[in-house]
Amino acid sequence: MAESKITPRADDYAQWYQDVIAQAELAEAAGVVKGCMVIKPHGYAVWEKIQADLDRRFKETGHQNACFPLLIPMSFLEKEAEHVEGFAPELAVVTRAGGKELEEPYAIRPTSETIIGHFFSKWIDSHRDLPLLINQWANVMRWELRTRIFLRTGEFLWQEGHTAHSTHAEAQEEVRRMLDIYRDTCHEVLAVPVIRGEKTAHERFAGAVETLCVEAMMQDGKALQAGTSHDLGQNFGKAFDVMFQNENGEREYVWQTSWGVSTRLVGAVIMSHSDDDGLVLPPRLAPIHVVIVPIFRKDEEKAAVMEAADKIAAELRDDGLSVKVDDREGLKPGAKYYEWERKGVPLRLEIGPRDLESQSVMAKMRLAEADERGRPQKLTLPMDGLGVSVGKLLDEFQQKLFDDAVTRRDENTISVDTWDDFVAAFSDGQSKFVWAHWDGTGETEKAIKEATKATIRCLPLDGEGPAAEPGECIKTGAASAQRVLFAKNY
Amino acid sequence: MAESKITPRADDYAQWYQDVIAQAELAEAAGVVKGCMVIKPHGYAVWEKIQADLDRRFKETGHQNACFPLLIPMSFLEKEAEHVEGFAPELAVVTRAGGKELEEPYAIRPTSETIIGHFFSKWIDSHRDLPLLINQWANVMRWELRTRIFLRTGEFLWQEGHTAHSTHAEAQEEVRRMLDIYRDTCHEVLAVPVIRGEKTAHERFAGAVETLCVEAMMQDGKALQAGTSHDLGQNFGKAFDVMFQNENGEREYVWQTSWGVSTRLVGAVIMSHSDDDGLVLPPRLAPIHVVIVPIFRKDEEKAAVMEAADKIAAELRDDGLSVKVDDREGLKPGAKYYEWERKGVPLRLEIGPRDLESQSVMAKMRLAEADERGRPQKLTLPMDGLGVSVGKLLDEFQQKLFDDAVTRRDENTISVDTWDDFVAAFSDGQSKFVWAHWDGTGETEKAIKEATKATIRCLPLDGEGPAAEPGECIKTGAASAQRVLFAKNY
Repeated sequence: MAESKITPRADDYAQWYQDVIAQAELAEAAGVVKGCMVIKPHGYAVWEKIQADLDRRFKETGHQNACFPLLIPMSFLEKEAEHVEGFAPELAVVTRAGGKELEEPYAIRPTSETIIGHFFSKWIDSHRDLPLLINQWANVMRWELRTRIFLRTGEFLWQEGHTAHSTHAEAQEEVRRMLDIYRDTCHEVLAVPVIRGEKTAHERFAGAVETLCVEAMMQDGKALQAGTSHDLGQNFGKAFDVMFQNENGEREYVWQTSWGVSTRLVGAVIMSHSDDDGLVLPPRLAPIHVVIVPIFRKDEEKAAVMEAADKIAAELRDDGLSVKVDDREGLKPGAKYYEWERKGVPLRLEIGPRDLESQSVMAKMRLAEADERGRPQKLTLPMDGLGVSVGKLLDEFQQKLFDDAVTRRDENTISVDTWDDFVAAFSDGQSKFVWAHWDGTGETEKAIKEATKATIRCLPLDGEGPAAEPGECIKTGAASAQRVLFAKNY
Repeated sequence: MAESKITPRADDYAQWYQDVIAQAELAEAAGVVKGCMVIKPHGYAVWEKIQADLDRRFKETGHQNACFPLLIPMSFLEKEAEHVEGFAPELAVVTRAGGKELEEPYAIRPTSETIIGHFFSKWIDSHRDLPLLINQWANVMRWELRTRIFLRTGEFLWQEGHTAHSTHAEAQEEVRRMLDIYRDTCHEVLAVPVIRGEKTAHERFAGAVETLCVEAMMQDGKALQAGTSHDLGQNFGKAFDVMFQNENGEREYVWQTSWGVSTRLVGAVIMSHSDDDGLVLPPRLAPIHVVIVPIFRKDEEKAAVMEAADKIAAELRDDGLSVKVDDREGLKPGAKYYEWERKGVPLRLEIGPRDLESQSVMAKMRLAEADERGRPQKLTLPMDGLGVSVGKLLDEFQQKLFDDAVTRRDENTISVDTWDDFVAAFSDGQSKFVWAHWDGTGETEKAIKEATKATIRCLPLDGEGPAAEPGECIKTGAASAQRVLFAKNY
């Protein structure tokens, strides 16, 4: 058993994050494989829930899963000039296989636009083959220098959608549709509020003509890019000769999109909701919804309490909940409480002889507020109708996590209009989201980053952020059409 | 659209297999990545169904999914002598990453016993940490010389279970439990009958003390190893120092198991059931259970027919079936029929104006027998109660495929007692399963293989194959305790 010490957020936010992950047994650094991680069962179960939700949404919107090779011929990566420039420094390269040096080395896929482009060119012939809507659940590898579990690792798990369309407008619709799916999953399942926007040219995916993104705020006020959706234009179509015959019999290049989210989302969930007692999980992601801790002192109490605990567990499971009865012997209830709190179980039920008499259970929500005596508030739930009241508590908890995250974000978001205020906003301890005007040039973007470490997270889509109104760039004073979102980021 | 020509099995079985895969759009050779394949949406959907069934069974028996690194330090593979000897010739090796030569190269995992052994040694400390029951869904790579889609490819998808136990007996129970799960999935879902047995020392997994397997017969009479379950003894425990403190406070090495099935199972399904018209899928694996083909000549018929087709589809979907209404225009019903037959849809419903009048639909099962006029038999199903009759047809079809495969296997299985009969059995065109006595030595096993190309597929477990009775080795005449299973194999 690992020692149960979690560094408080206020002391060292980065260490707190590592401690929460270790104590909840979500993952660990691989150590022997540079920059890579092992996703442990509790962390993988969270990822499986994210996967299941996204996979359902992808399929409902007509996408089909497939599997393309892990290895990509190096020459493929070089066919799209910006793409190779972006990814070449991070490649892991296979040079030997089957006991021989390879004539042409292979890269382990950092992303699959190139190899999928190659197959699209074989599969697409006519406008009748379009749209082609493919998704792949896969591992990818980017040899990063500075890694952090879940947020940035050498190998990570993700999904990558790749689609081909006959018109640019249809591809653009797809880019937006998938961005909205990411937003919906973040809001409804992860309980992580996100801002949808467009990346600047500098922050765009290597090879895309436009990159849309969803950006979330972590508890330290930094931004985390939670997902991206790219309009690839005809760039990869031209690089890989992906053409179709249109309804007039003319050959045209297809319009492509790609979009992805990764195990980084697990990091986003951890950083959004957890506290100094450990992991906090929204019920829709929790591998265990309810833990039942039976409490008894004497052997003669045990049988009745255990029977009641098992009965409650069976009832809640019938309602589709995942329930753990912690019947381990030789471990005091308090030790069990702490362990399941660290692991982020949303609801704990305690049941002892007195509860049997009163036909009720004691319930404690993760993140319960303190009562008047400074102890975590507990509720008394009648056994009659327990399934309904537990379901209600979990739904409320899901909503509360989202609402709290929105409130925290809004409290740490400001609009500024002068360079001095802008610099000040990124100088104090707590990072912020800052809406400010920008003149639209890469030079200014770079100068601002060098001066403050803040980057442009996105140009907000309609309805996100403050109402669009023209103004003057905080750095140069030049004209600006709308405020953009600045933040320090992961 | 690919040309719809499928080489008959009788002409060229290997080409037939390739043709079925191409025509059903299940997968294709990657070409540009040696020995690897692309699994196309229709093939991947079959794999997803196999995954879902196995994953449920693994979880029901207490296993948890996790994710370990793709890359394995070369030194890890060398820690278990037999293991590295078995896998070294097939490794793909990463020697460069992030723009630099690596000090120690990494192998892309051919299997994960070594890296998982490393982490087990960190995670296991006490008997309370045991049993540790882990599964991983992953891609692995074995650089093979002769590849065949799904059956043997450079990269493939699989699951690998890895467990650690405090006693050898418990590990052996686990090995057998997982073998039985593979048998159950093969029988109940894939409709592929298998024989459970033990591998000879020569055919054992590199590093195991015992390998159990399930062996299936393909339509050409050859054997296909469908899954394996290994008793690793303490071999990897010793190589990776995986120790636990037992209840008496003594340090002991753990007892480990590993077990796996792969995308090879998709190949087993194709080869077991398909015919010269293309793919045949058992309903429990079919991505589409029912295709509805609306039939009309005049526009005024169209609306009513389409409405009925959509209504039937909605009803069947309510029953949990996957239904496709093929409303493509400009394609004749016959062309649609052939396409969905090639893709292995178990049941086709045809609905036209006359069916509307009689309130019935025409139904044709894949593999329908010929009627008296030599045309495939069709059934008339009343629309009233259609869901029930369709469900029944699909259940019967699932059972029929299994029964047919058992019959075919049994008809191609013989017991022989002389060397001449044994040689003859492997000389004629149709391969067979042959039960024969063997003296238990590796020399004889090798001599038999060299003379006939037949290998020992397994020593049958109790209840599999003919009743155990002693006899004399067909090759040497030496004593034998029981007949073993010989076959040519994939």
